[in-house]
Amino acid sequence: MADHNVLFDIAPEPVSVPTGSLITEAAEKAGIEINQPCGGQGRCGRCAVQITAGDARRRSTLRLSEADVQAGYALACQSVIERDVHITVPPQEKIQRRLTTDRTARKVTVPAGYDPLQGQTIRRINVTLTPPSLEDQTDDWSRLQTALRKTAGVTQLRASLDCMRKIGPILRNGDWQVTAILNAQTWDCPDCPAQLLSLQPGHLHEHTPLWGVAVDIGTTTVSVWMVDLLTGEVQAQVAEYNQQISRGEDVISRIIVASKEGGGEKMHRLVVDTINDLLIRACKRLNANPNEILKVTISGNSTMLHLLLKIPASSIRLSPFVTTVNHIPTLTAVDVGLFTHPQAVVDCLPGVASYVGADITAGVFSSGMVDSEEMVLFLDVGTNGETVLGSMDWLVTCACSAGPAFEGAGVLHGMRATKGAIEEVWINAETFEPNFRVIGGTKPVGLCGSGLISLLAEMFLTGVIDKSGRINTKLTTSRTRDGDHGGEFVIAWADDTNTGEDIVITNVDIDNLLRAKAAIYAGFTVLAENVGVNLNMVEQILIGGSFGQYINVEKAIEIGLLPDLPWDRFHFLGNTSVLGAYLALIDHNTRIRIAEIAARMTYIELSADNTFYDAFMSALFLPHTDMSQFPSVKKLTVQG
Amino acid sequence: MADHNVLFDIAPEPVSVPTGSLITEAAEKAGIEINQPCGGQGRCGRCAVQITAGDARRRSTLRLSEADVQAGYALACQSVIERDVHITVPPQEKIQRRLTTDRTARKVTVPAGYDPLQGQTIRRINVTLTPPSLEDQTDDWSRLQTALRKTAGVTQLRASLDCMRKIGPILRNGDWQVTAILNAQTWDCPDCPAQLLSLQPGHLHEHTPLWGVAVDIGTTTVSVWMVDLLTGEVQAQVAEYNQQISRGEDVISRIIVASKEGGGEKMHRLVVDTINDLLIRACKRLNANPNEILKVTISGNSTMLHLLLKIPASSIRLSPFVTTVNHIPTLTAVDVGLFTHPQAVVDCLPGVASYVGADITAGVFSSGMVDSEEMVLFLDVGTNGETVLGSMDWLVTCACSAGPAFEGAGVLHGMRATKGAIEEVWINAETFEPNFRVIGGTKPVGLCGSGLISLLAEMFLTGVIDKSGRINTKLTTSRTRDGDHGGEFVIAWADDTNTGEDIVITNVDIDNLLRAKAAIYAGFTVLAENVGVNLNMVEQILIGGSFGQYINVEKAIEIGLLPDLPWDRFHFLGNTSVLGAYLALIDHNTRIRIAEIAARMTYIELSADNTFYDAFMSALFLPHTDMSQFPSVKKLTVQG
Repeated sequence: MADHNVLFDIAPEPVSVPTGSLITEAAEKAGIEINQPCGGQGRCGRCAVQITAGDARRRSTLRLSEADVQAGYALACQSVIERDVHITVPPQEKIQRRLTTDRTARKVTVPAGYDPLQGQTIRRINVTLTPPSLEDQTDDWSRLQTALRKTAGVTQLRASLDCMRKIGPILRNGDWQVTAILNAQTWDCPDCPAQLLSLQPGHLHEHTPLWGVAVDIGTTTVSVWMVDLLTGEVQAQVAEYNQQISRGEDVISRIIVASKEGGGEKMHRLVVDTINDLLIRACKRLNANPNEILKVTISGNSTMLHLLLKIPASSIRLSPFVTTVNHIPTLTAVDVGLFTHPQAVVDCLPGVASYVGADITAGVFSSGMVDSEEMVLFLDVGTNGETVLGSMDWLVTCACSAGPAFEGAGVLHGMRATKGAIEEVWINAETFEPNFRVIGGTKPVGLCGSGLISLLAEMFLTGVIDKSGRINTKLTTSRTRDGDHGGEFVIAWADDTNTGEDIVITNVDIDNLLRAKAAIYAGFTVLAENVGVNLNMVEQILIGGSFGQYINVEKAIEIGLLPDLPWDRFHFLGNTSVLGAYLALIDHNTRIRIAEIAARMTYIELSADNTFYDAFMSALFLPHTDMSQFPSVKKLTVQG
Repeated sequence: MADHNVLFDIAPEPVSVPTGSLITEAAEKAGIEINQPCGGQGRCGRCAVQITAGDARRRSTLRLSEADVQAGYALACQSVIERDVHITVPPQEKIQRRLTTDRTARKVTVPAGYDPLQGQTIRRINVTLTPPSLEDQTDDWSRLQTALRKTAGVTQLRASLDCMRKIGPILRNGDWQVTAILNAQTWDCPDCPAQLLSLQPGHLHEHTPLWGVAVDIGTTTVSVWMVDLLTGEVQAQVAEYNQQISRGEDVISRIIVASKEGGGEKMHRLVVDTINDLLIRACKRLNANPNEILKVTISGNSTMLHLLLKIPASSIRLSPFVTTVNHIPTLTAVDVGLFTHPQAVVDCLPGVASYVGADITAGVFSSGMVDSEEMVLFLDVGTNGETVLGSMDWLVTCACSAGPAFEGAGVLHGMRATKGAIEEVWINAETFEPNFRVIGGTKPVGLCGSGLISLLAEMFLTGVIDKSGRINTKLTTSRTRDGDHGGEFVIAWADDTNTGEDIVITNVDIDNLLRAKAAIYAGFTVLAENVGVNLNMVEQILIGGSFGQYINVEKAIEIGLLPDLPWDRFHFLGNTSVLGAYLALIDHNTRIRIAEIAARMTYIELSADNTFYDAFMSALFLPHTDMSQFPSVKKLTVQG
């Protein structure tokens, strides 16, 4: 097989690849990062590069216009190298640090009823040993065990080989005074002996922090809370985009990437790097050493946890949609590759199914739903649209594939909720002129999820779009027009934007948004129907996920994303997943309760029959085909 | 610091080392192996090299004659490089394969009372799972656990992350028919769940072997028995010199080497390589794959087990002579570096003290001593001279530092029991002409342990040496003479040897041998005295260790190495350590019993007072200062 030279404009020298290589593969070899939000499936068009000399065989030109192709543009993930070629890589969209969730994070306090010392499995013990002598030649390990039994009542102890190797020198360096850190118990082996995690020479002051971290691996954002396990206090909260984003926006794209050769390792590496960067950042802020972190509790959806642990995830994607493992056994940091103490306990919270993961069980617990006597609907308005319905007595759950439209993907000028994103829109019902608010107060770059919901509702109520979402291009305004992608509405003129382009929403965008909202609405209505519950009976609607925080209930009801219930029943809880991980980190009983919750949640598979499909089709309208489900909206439109 | 070029005659190019480097360090850098039986302490003289250009600063010239030094010889481990130098390396003594213990090994059968299926903790189970469907989306791991519970009553199961990663693909490759191999129990965590070790697609025939190995790590020889765990049958026995020998003949030298920088890793590597070579050899013979080995039970003295596991061993050597760990927790092959299945269970048998290790507890069990109603003396006649006295009711033990004289070290023409070694000697009482038998029937190369015992006894009984071991150079024979090292006796003239040199024994050699035998004799007499037992009360003397097999009781009593008791009380058991490992491998109860034995053996530290020293001094004569302890020998010498 012949090799060809590929020269990228931003690389110092050409790379050589065999015939049949993709441009993305050549780029990887050249050390160039090309974003592939759809995971290299040729669906999103974001990996387009320009071929300036030679050519490549384009297997697909989806999302490229004829003019683009004429100008030499090609999808890097779909173009095959068959000769020498020169390639220009457009500037890649940089993933900006989401600082808003960092230093400005809300202070978390230890909830009432939690006793951090009582509930903690990690124990730090100052031990003084009797030195050995010719009269007492007991081996070091037995001597340490005896001392721990006498000092702290530890009756059984085990240690890894790594730990065992250090015992002799540390006992002697500390002159037979040492600090032992051990894990007294794990949820998956209550009868196992305590595990010695770390031994240090000398004694530590009782107020020296003992570090643990709660981690939530979101598909978009990874959050880390650093906690002093002795007090239970959260000392630092840091968050960062999941580096896997460059290889796919949603879980499906990422599973596809992970299923390719070397892909599992790559996805594992990207998320571990993200977590490790966050650990280092949190430690710097607290002047701590990552090696002092002894316990890590991790939450996240099932795909995220599989990818983290390099467990094959392809069965999650393919019918009948099965995970390898929902209750992941307790692990050690060195197994996972985390920059903590190598023997740190790594505990992944349990999930229920492929699309109802640990993030949801953690949320169900931390939201208080499981202790509620009233009926509660818990919603995670995200790509997977997880829903849980129930109370302290019973819990049912389902997930629908909403897609990432509300996260800005599949929408021409969609973007994440960062600086420059339009987050709220108002449209004048007579002039159709929009007003908007932009995150960071700058000129707009695009629209984030809350902006899209707001825009959709305003367009619907002012008649810019009809019930089916079609843009009325006959209005007496230049804002509506026929564009390259069909009908579109201009939210901001080029002069007023940061991109120098008009910011628009198209009929195609609206279709994608309708499909996303319809899936979510259909999800919880089918779930309620399944257990014979009328949505009016739901006393509280708890909305988890960091996206959820920014939703305007009124607008969300107006587009038929949320059920038409009194606004005071809605509560936005923010990141309930990391909160659940935190509570499990500081309290072993909580960890056990979350496992029990996972075990007793009844999962309803929506793809099993046509019920969901029918409900989805009915919800593809604004707000819904059955207006009786949206009395408050009906009133508005009648008035309007 | 300046660098210097060192050119070895057998290296293709010079290496560069800083001022102050030892010749051994330069050799290592050049990839040249120089034997250092004493571990680089400058005691044995075996690392001598010849400096042919330039020079090196000799910190010691022990064991080199003035003529040697004049000719440029230097001890590689004691000579410091301070300028460019050319070095000639004499051919290194190759460690020959001890084939005698290999294919010709005695066939071992499963002892009466052992039920290999009942006693085995490793279980292999053919499992058929119900495939998942949209109606049953149970995760793979739960599905497998359910199937194992139904098929084989396994109520609790855990798995390593490594294993977890393979479950999904293997279940699907095997079309939901798989073979699971699990370890049901470990001695150190009886309440822990069973551990899934391996999962393979498809079902295996019930007669397909399930491999385990019993390993004995001797200071000199490593033995491996490969066993079908389903039948308990030993299918292959292989043995090889411990590659650590090149870095020290005895445990003390090896601890010194291991305590140097990088030394622990080196010693670990050498013994792991030895074991792995043996595993591969055994597998080849049985047409098995090392990856099919699922359990490894290891015996060996405390130093050998510490070095195997890279646990610091220096405290073993220094007063108060304490190990890091006697009861080593159950490990995994991947932790230890063995070429078996990575998840194979590695179980090291327990020791009692620094110098009474797992080899002795294994021997005490496998010899049957613990079940004996009669009083038994168990001896391991080797470098450490371990002794156990007792019966089913009580056990006391001690160790004496006998040194490796009987293994041929510290004796001018001493050698191991390989081809060319004189193994038995007879001396004509009138002419003083010796006859001898040579292993392999060739011309002699030197004397092995049994040959030395035999020679010493014959010389004593014929008056060639006196009670104190001094050679009578006034006899009317040219066999006794004054040599370079003082008085000596010629066993074979140069014309009759394979080396072209006379084979002699010197006064210095005899002193070393007397010290070795005196230490062993003093060890068991002090032990007996300590518990108020007269040696005459001992009904059986069991001699373990592979060296023990070749001792002639009569001669050993004549030199005062063994007690003067009726010959029929002596039994030579061969390698009781590997036998104990084998029995623990096939039977979990045996493993537990060996741990109990280790826990109840009372260790007597001989260096705690002067009793041992006094007994040792009295035993430095042939056979002993107190002839009343050797009535049968007394009779012989009076008659002679």
